[in-house]
Amino acid sequence: MKQEKTLDTEQVFRGRAVTLRVDTVEKPGGKRTTREIVEHSDCVAIVAVDDEDRILLVRQFRKAVEEELLEIPAGGIEHGETSAQAVCRELQEEVGFFPNTIEELGGFYAAPGYCTEYLHLYLATDLTQSALEAEDTHEIEVVRVPVSEVPDLISSGDIRDAKSVAGLLRFLWRGHT
Amino acid sequence: MKQEKTLDTEQVFRGRAVTLRVDTVEKPGGKRTTREIVEHSDCVAIVAVDDEDRILLVRQFRKAVEEELLEIPAGGIEHGETSAQAVCRELQEEVGFFPNTIEELGGFYAAPGYCTEYLHLYLATDLTQSALEAEDTHEIEVVRVPVSEVPDLISSGDIRDAKSVAGLLRFLWRGHT
Repeated sequence: MKQEKTLDTEQVFRGRAVTLRVDTVEKPGGKRTTREIVEHSDCVAIVAVDDEDRILLVRQFRKAVEEELLEIPAGGIEHGETSAQAVCRELQEEVGFFPNTIEELGGFYAAPGYCTEYLHLYLATDLTQSALEAEDTHEIEVVRVPVSEVPDLISSGDIRDAKSVAGLLRFLWRGHT
Repeated sequence: MKQEKTLDTEQVFRGRAVTLRVDTVEKPGGKRTTREIVEHSDCVAIVAVDDEDRILLVRQFRKAVEEELLEIPAGGIEHGETSAQAVCRELQEEVGFFPNTIEELGGFYAAPGYCTEYLHLYLATDLTQSALEAEDTHEIEVVRVPVSEVPDLISSGDIRDAKSVAGLLRFLWRGHT
């Protein structure tokens, strides 16, 4: 495998959500360059389906893009937590349901050109009402949409973030193979 | 629409690929907090299909995740360029083909929780051999896979970055609606 050898690494910022470092690397051919890398915790992203075949989405304002977006629930895996535990906690915090059945549907890197974040994708079903209080989830609005309407919401751009498009189509596509 | 009013903004790092700033914001309820925001140029991501119904993918080492990944071609829109021009340039630089027909298939934010990047998704067909030299594309290996094999490459995790999963499934799903 081609690799880039790290000659030097410098942390330039450490925040609550992201850390930024600059690596000086030697490319396979011997040339040197730098790589700016955003370190972000790994996350879970959840396709949650209720008993009436509706998907539970969350609408929230995203400062980075200055827009309200309609997304699948997602959040960071906390220290000491498994990804399955993170799914159960996040779903209770963001949409107020505990998933009695979860299934991992693979996952993906968010933006591997410059960011470390990997998202574990889960299907959550057999939902029981159960809310957990959390900071930063008060501004989240829960939106339920029938599974059959999801392709149109993606085509129209109503759902327009990579993890939601990838996660929902991964779930929908499963039914076709 | 709920919004967060910017009270203060501080640029903490400015690099070649990313800029990082910290905004102090007032949430709709009046509470104050900070938002760490990675600024990244908008990009194009390309599902390129040749005359034999094969998708052109690129394999390259990604330092941020310390792995070689198999992805759809993608790259930043340069200053003064339209997204369509970026598609034509990137495809010539990364895979050595000029697309005589392109069609926008919408797009998505890469990671709107903390990053500004928006990816315009394009379908590129009617490909003519035409290479453009560029820095940083020498380590890229072009891989052609039949369209019919793409779902398995996603299920298996061989393709495992959000833009490629979202972009390819968006293209494949089109055929089903």
